Amino acid sequence: MDFELIREIVIPGDTKIVLLVLDGLGGLPHPTKGRTEMQTANTPNLDRLAREGICGMIYHVGLGVTPGSGPGHLALFGYDPRRYRIGRGALEAVGIDFDLGPQDVAARGNFCTVDEGGRIVDRRAGRIDTDTCARLCAELRDIEVAGAQVFVEPVREHRFLLALRGDGLSDALSETDPQREGVPPPQVRALAAGAEGTAGLVNAFVAQARERLCDHRPANMVLLRGFARRPELPSMADVFQLRAAAIAFYPMYRGLAKLVGMTALPSGPSLADSLAALREHWGQFDFFFVHYKATDSAGEDGDFERKAAKLEEVDAAIPELLGLQPDVIMVSGDHSTPSTYRAHSWHPVPFLLRSRWCQPDRAERFNELDCQAGSLGLFAATEIMPLAMAHAGRFTKYGA
Amino acid sequence: MDFELIREIVIPGDTKIVLLVLDGLGGLPHPTKGRTEMQTANTPNLDRLAREGICGMIYHVGLGVTPGSGPGHLALFGYDPRRYRIGRGALEAVGIDFDLGPQDVAARGNFCTVDEGGRIVDRRAGRIDTDTCARLCAELRDIEVAGAQVFVEPVREHRFLLALRGDGLSDALSETDPQREGVPPPQVRALAAGAEGTAGLVNAFVAQARERLCDHRPANMVLLRGFARRPELPSMADVFQLRAAAIAFYPMYRGLAKLVGMTALPSGPSLADSLAALREHWGQFDFFFVHYKATDSAGEDGDFERKAAKLEEVDAAIPELLGLQPDVIMVSGDHSTPSTYRAHSWHPVPFLLRSRWCQPDRAERFNELDCQAGSLGLFAATEIMPLAMAHAGRFTKYGA
Repeated sequence: MDFELIREIVIPGDTKIVLLVLDGLGGLPHPTKGRTEMQTANTPNLDRLAREGICGMIYHVGLGVTPGSGPGHLALFGYDPRRYRIGRGALEAVGIDFDLGPQDVAARGNFCTVDEGGRIVDRRAGRIDTDTCARLCAELRDIEVAGAQVFVEPVREHRFLLALRGDGLSDALSETDPQREGVPPPQVRALAAGAEGTAGLVNAFVAQARERLCDHRPANMVLLRGFARRPELPSMADVFQLRAAAIAFYPMYRGLAKLVGMTALPSGPSLADSLAALREHWGQFDFFFVHYKATDSAGEDGDFERKAAKLEEVDAAIPELLGLQPDVIMVSGDHSTPSTYRAHSWHPVPFLLRSRWCQPDRAERFNELDCQAGSLGLFAATEIMPLAMAHAGRFTKYGA
Repeated sequence: MDFELIREIVIPGDTKIVLLVLDGLGGLPHPTKGRTEMQTANTPNLDRLAREGICGMIYHVGLGVTPGSGPGHLALFGYDPRRYRIGRGALEAVGIDFDLGPQDVAARGNFCTVDEGGRIVDRRAGRIDTDTCARLCAELRDIEVAGAQVFVEPVREHRFLLALRGDGLSDALSETDPQREGVPPPQVRALAAGAEGTAGLVNAFVAQARERLCDHRPANMVLLRGFARRPELPSMADVFQLRAAAIAFYPMYRGLAKLVGMTALPSGPSLADSLAALREHWGQFDFFFVHYKATDSAGEDGDFERKAAKLEEVDAAIPELLGLQPDVIMVSGDHSTPSTYRAHSWHPVPFLLRSRWCQPDRAERFNELDCQAGSLGLFAATEIMPLAMAHAGRFTKYGA
């Protein structure tokens, strides 16, 4: 739903909405047993929510499109992922929960190997380990360039984040990663008028980085790509008049939530940790995004049984969550990760919404088949927030 | 799905996609027996595909809109039929598989009858037979006009195609068919600046045609309408990175396929012919559009039993088709042609897609009721190509 309409009908309230995101939720049939992970797991509490609530299947970007974690979550939060794009450098910052400011330009960095002639011989520096990456980032962190503050943060293996902070910086910059070996990394060029100054800053950084790294072969040079500023997203407070909080252990999901103005609450990795955070902050917020990662990890590992077991773990936590008496609870995922496919996939994701105001529908259990038969059918994930708002009494009538 | 998104996520592959179009597929219940043609036909192989695959109901232009063959097929190929329009003259060219070039302007022609005063007395010249039409076209074919090459091709009965080929021709022309009798056909006028020259050429052609036809009453004059250039459609190679081939006996469908850059393979009218062509060219293409006409013809003839029988004929050919091991097979239609309605209709059309990566759904048979209960619900035909691309592993993730 477009934000113009939402802003026209949104009203304040004192109701509570919980969005429980089971990462990589949807699955495919077991090759011999013929049932999906959700059909296999024994989930009486989720099934009860499905029976009492309304169900459907959601797609996040489009039919047949596999969403990355960024677009997948933005859609769940109500933000059209086609309209609100997160550049690669900005996503890298989000992924390590680096607070990219409005004055910042970020890039994805690789440590790489160059020969004596400066030609790239390995774009990933032999995939150095993350500890080495952290040490090398520490060597680069105090590089000074005129007109901007420099941040260099390790990500994983050979990957790092470069952020520049200063007045009037531009992200209209060419990349220094030629995406092939045997050639030297090119200088950064301005791709738009007004970006020349930033290009100069980046080139000055790269020149100093090269000097400092020359004895650190295989990681004796850097490559930079995906220059991006912080995406401009209206906040959930602005659009939905919600005080929104995120309970997520992994930095990527905290970072995504913060991009839409959520408060990231501290939380440990377990469901018990999430529930504790929820209880502790229940009075302070109207909307809680609770992220659960283990379903996706099991799917990516191709571990059908573990994915089903993780669903049962979630199910066991539902009564305690319901004990908080949320007015609306939604359970879904940011994409499917079928264990047989071992990766994010395009398959639509089961969705349920339970409140006291639910129209009856045919879904009896929380799985792919039942949710397909639910009253919401196959629909865009961006519509779940409007549904939640309505069921929470936070939308008024449209027109007289 | 918009092509901008498709181009962003498309990746090459070596998978094979088959789209089997059963023209006029969908139907309505038999007036006494109460079951549709698809429900009546015994189609165990199609039913198995429906059971193993994902199903839904598609609409090609909009709910309640009966698509012509052009828009119906364009939608199946992924092209928004509202955005990509085929002018009437261009469709007439497509319908006889006349290769309309980028320098051409085409019009639909009617032979008609005029009285001594030049007034139209029969806009269709008593519906002369097609052979007569062909002889008359031969009489007009060598008319010469300064600045353009002239093509006159018979279509059917009183209908023919006029195409002019030359530099700087325009299709912004008024029509010479007043759509009523008792008046003389008006001269062609330029409807935009720069079209005056082409208007003059067309009027010169009409004047000569009248002279040559004066002794051929009832076909003693021509009417021209629907001036159109070849529509500019991006090719399937460009949009989907697919080498696409069409296996279709009727020129209209070959012509439509060529408009989106498919290679039209030679094929006879029978399903066996189509399968032979498919086998022969299997290694050379990634995507095969196979057109089957007999279902539509039976529907237009109001022959319920024949339509059901034709579905059984298709069903019998499915095992051989599957023997080629396509990665994705889709079966659907370009519109419904219910036998009781005896014409193209607006009713949504059953759709199935089978690949090894299908989410389970409730469709057990290939008919209207089961496809309605399928996981795809009621959706736009333009989305079937993105679904096929995903299931064929030809789309990468959107966003990180």
